[in-house]
Amino acid sequence: MSEADKNAVWNTAVTRVEPNRVAVRGYDVAELMGRVSFGAAVHLILTGELPKPPIARLMDAILVASIDHGATPPSALAARTVASTGASLSASVAAGIISINRHHGGAIEDCARQLKKIADRAANESISMDEAATRTLADMKEAGERMPGFGHRYHTKDPRTARLFTLAREAGVDGTHMKAARAVEKSFADAKKALPINVDGAIGAILADLRMNPAAFNGIFMIARTPGLVAHVIEEQTREKPMRRIDPVNHGYDGPAARSVGTTTNEHQ
Amino acid sequence: MSEADKNAVWNTAVTRVEPNRVAVRGYDVAELMGRVSFGAAVHLILTGELPKPPIARLMDAILVASIDHGATPPSALAARTVASTGASLSASVAAGIISINRHHGGAIEDCARQLKKIADRAANESISMDEAATRTLADMKEAGERMPGFGHRYHTKDPRTARLFTLAREAGVDGTHMKAARAVEKSFADAKKALPINVDGAIGAILADLRMNPAAFNGIFMIARTPGLVAHVIEEQTREKPMRRIDPVNHGYDGPAARSVGTTTNEHQ
Amino acid sequence: MSEADKNAVWNTAVTRVEPNRVAVRGYDVAELMGRVSFGAAVHLILTGELPKPPIARLMDAILVASIDHGATPPSALAARTVASTGASLSASVAAGIISINRHHGGAIEDCARQLKKIADRAANESISMDEAATRTLADMKEAGERMPGFGHRYHTKDPRTARLFTLAREAGVDGTHMKAARAVEKSFADAKKALPINVDGAIGAILADLRMNPAAFNGIFMIARTPGLVAHVIEEQTREKPMRRIDPVNHGYDGPAARSVGTTTNEHQ
Amino acid sequence: MSEADKNAVWNTAVTRVEPNRVAVRGYDVAELMGRVSFGAAVHLILTGELPKPPIARLMDAILVASIDHGATPPSALAARTVASTGASLSASVAAGIISINRHHGGAIEDCARQLKKIADRAANESISMDEAATRTLADMKEAGERMPGFGHRYHTKDPRTARLFTLAREAGVDGTHMKAARAVEKSFADAKKALPINVDGAIGAILADLRMNPAAFNGIFMIARTPGLVAHVIEEQTREKPMRRIDPVNHGYDGPAARSVGTTTNEHQ
Repeated sequence: MSEADKNAVWNTAVTRVEPNRVAVRGYDVAELMGRVSFGAAVHLILTGELPKPPIARLMDAILVASIDHGATPPSALAARTVASTGASLSASVAAGIISINRHHGGAIEDCARQLKKIADRAANESISMDEAATRTLADMKEAGERMPGFGHRYHTKDPRTARLFTLAREAGVDGTHMKAARAVEKSFADAKKALPINVDGAIGAILADLRMNPAAFNGIFMIARTPGLVAHVIEEQTREKPMRRIDPVNHGYDGPAARSVGTTTNEHQ
Repeated sequence: MSEADKNAVWNTAVTRVEPNRVAVRGYDVAELMGRVSFGAAVHLILTGELPKPPIARLMDAILVASIDHGATPPSALAARTVASTGASLSASVAAGIISINRHHGGAIEDCARQLKKIADRAANESISMDEAATRTLADMKEAGERMPGFGHRYHTKDPRTARLFTLAREAGVDGTHMKAARAVEKSFADAKKALPINVDGAIGAILADLRMNPAAFNGIFMIARTPGLVAHVIEEQTREKPMRRIDPVNHGYDGPAARSVGTTTNEHQ
Repeated sequence: MSEADKNAVWNTAVTRVEPNRVAVRGYDVAELMGRVSFGAAVHLILTGELPKPPIARLMDAILVASIDHGATPPSALAARTVASTGASLSASVAAGIISINRHHGGAIEDCARQLKKIADRAANESISMDEAATRTLADMKEAGERMPGFGHRYHTKDPRTARLFTLAREAGVDGTHMKAARAVEKSFADAKKALPINVDGAIGAILADLRMNPAAFNGIFMIARTPGLVAHVIEEQTREKPMRRIDPVNHGYDGPAARSVGTTTNEHQ
Repeated sequence: MSEADKNAVWNTAVTRVEPNRVAVRGYDVAELMGRVSFGAAVHLILTGELPKPPIARLMDAILVASIDHGATPPSALAARTVASTGASLSASVAAGIISINRHHGGAIEDCARQLKKIADRAANESISMDEAATRTLADMKEAGERMPGFGHRYHTKDPRTARLFTLAREAGVDGTHMKAARAVEKSFADAKKALPINVDGAIGAILADLRMNPAAFNGIFMIARTPGLVAHVIEEQTREKPMRRIDPVNHGYDGPAARSVGTTTNEHQ
């Protein structure tokens, strides 16, 4: 036991730091570098386990899915508003992180918890997942509650959602949350409601089937979105005058034109 | 041109959001998912270009290198202190992000800028990089300035640093900043000073040779460290009582014992 | 109606800003300056009404009571930790503000809500306030809940608490919350428990009897504590080296020695 | 010397906390309550001295002057944007505080520093204040610098400014910064430029003549503005739907109509 451990008044199980060795959940970071992706390292630090490559690939995809969503989300607007006052990069990005809450990114966790309730109901009441979904949606409707993670005013058929489930299945992930999600979609479709699962719901269902602690889901969204916030802050402080009125609606895009990844050069296992 | 573009009063070049298509710097996110790592997506959103796989691997390694450094850094302590008051996950993580500044993560950018000065001096004064390094270090010493990114009180021979340079060379990256860094190390060694480049300096030299805007470097540290902060906040709010005095020194590690990645299961190209 | 009002898509009832006239809740700020204290202006902006002088004096006293509590509270520690990294004054103070939550300053609101429950119970069950207090405390004890705003491990007989009630009575304030508070104190005393109301509970009872919205109470604590945070951040960045380990316990006081206000020079009505 | 002082590894000179006694810069807070205004206590905690009543009144006026400026400033917009996501009151207010920077509230300090340069120049070059002002403004113009604290696009003749100087003179405050400010105004007027000192410049000149450390000036703005931010956040979370697009321009005021303080009821010395 090290000196620090003998005098320890409290303990952390996240990372051990010794001279010339930084180990996250037991793994030497220097050994991880170049061998695992950042998505794999995120899975490791949050769950304690290093994922097999297909799961690592799924983790990266989940993070890439949420890396940015333009200048409209409140996180980007808060970050830009603060950046406009001449604040530092970290203060501006932090204002964006603070915006990630119940209503912004929170659907990932809320949806996962609701899906679990449906799955538990099916088990407890010995009914099918479809029936559990239908009954739960009816209860929620009566209580005036919306089902988080389903439907989207803007993205009616989001390719990110389908891509996530494809990658999940390729990784052998298809547990009770994903099954419950399909049951909910079926129930809505039967009721003629256009409410397919959206990308937040998909991420929630998949992370839950990866057995990640739901308390961390809002954190996954923060991790994913930080690069977007950094990019928006740098752009705000580079292109725009300080203290400008930031129109949250009437802005356009003047970046690179649409282009494709290509099939060989950028593939990653 | 879309409706939004016609009415646009300002523009962003980061991400275009249309119904069912989110494109970062021109690339459809759904197409990136499962094909590029998060590190590659970070490179894309910050520089505007998708990196070739060896560079993508280097980017992931840079992020993994800084994913966490235990409970001692001020970012972890600030995050835990706020978490201890019952704040939300995002508010607590934001407090950690706010701590990433000039003195905490700032060496990445400071070092890169200093290395550039040395490289520019070599070019402008038609002297060798070694001579430019020696003269610049002498000037700095006289002005009472320390060379950022070199030496470390705790990690005297950090394996993360060597690993980064190995991965950089494997990716064909070895530009003026890395050359200037070697010149500085040589100069210190010749003066019998134990001041090898540290991990922040290595990241700065490499990112600069990847032609990334130095204003973004502190952002790279934020992106890398967010998962660590999330882990620390969740642990604080799960294991510890609220409103506790957090001893910044006398804490130990009680997480998983040292373990190794293994050679086959977790390799990623 | 002004131009702005005609095109308004949303409205604020806090402050009207016109050329050369800033009016808070209808009052021209220039007219308020030098005529009302900042405490009166705080009451105005939060409740919509300018208080009579004795109430204004009570408001100032409430704010002065909470202006600072040394370097130990998590808000001061979070602010100092961030300040230590070289952050700006506002970023450092903001980290302190983020710490003001459920467990830190939250007792003001929690106590007020519990006192209201007791007062409501007395009315609804046609029992005395004392009886309502005793029964409610018994229920809470059985549910494992502590009564917020009562008792203090450190300040066993806080003169700030007595001073607040004296000023409240002098201002003619003594409503149901203050009555309920006395009933709770009596109940604890009868049960031989040393749990007098503490300063947070006193502020909560008084603000509630001033009919201020309880949602604002945590805000009163933020308003009061901001000067303390500013002072701690400036001291941290002036006296201490950057990136220092801040011992949250073993620190002392080396400021001015104890001194008294004096009776004439500093009196304010 | 107390136990804490003997084991102290670092010291604070702001507040001493002992059982049942909280003393700010030597003064027992319980003794201050009801005897000094919050403005006086702010002066005390920042400068170390309790101000005489006329100065205390001036401090309250300075704080009241900046208590709010509607929903347009970036601090209010940042706070509302975060509030709209369902964040806590403190997280939302903190986002507003983070916005208080170089460009937002920073003119108070920048103006004071510039006025000092002018006053120093007059002394060093043995010229009149008027001449020092004229020469300095000419230098600044040539360097493309604007004189902070003078002129305002919206408030061309702000009554708050005149009121502050009246209260300052009534308090016997009229030092070199205020003299330099008048010289600058005269210089601009002579050059036919409509650039009278604005409220930030007035506060800066007066606080500097009160000998307050300029590093604290941005803090004075934070202290003053916190109540405004609290009011805006509560209004946002009470009146508006979550996740709304906040138009930063097209909003109106629907609060109380214009009303006057009255001459007797609300006077405060």
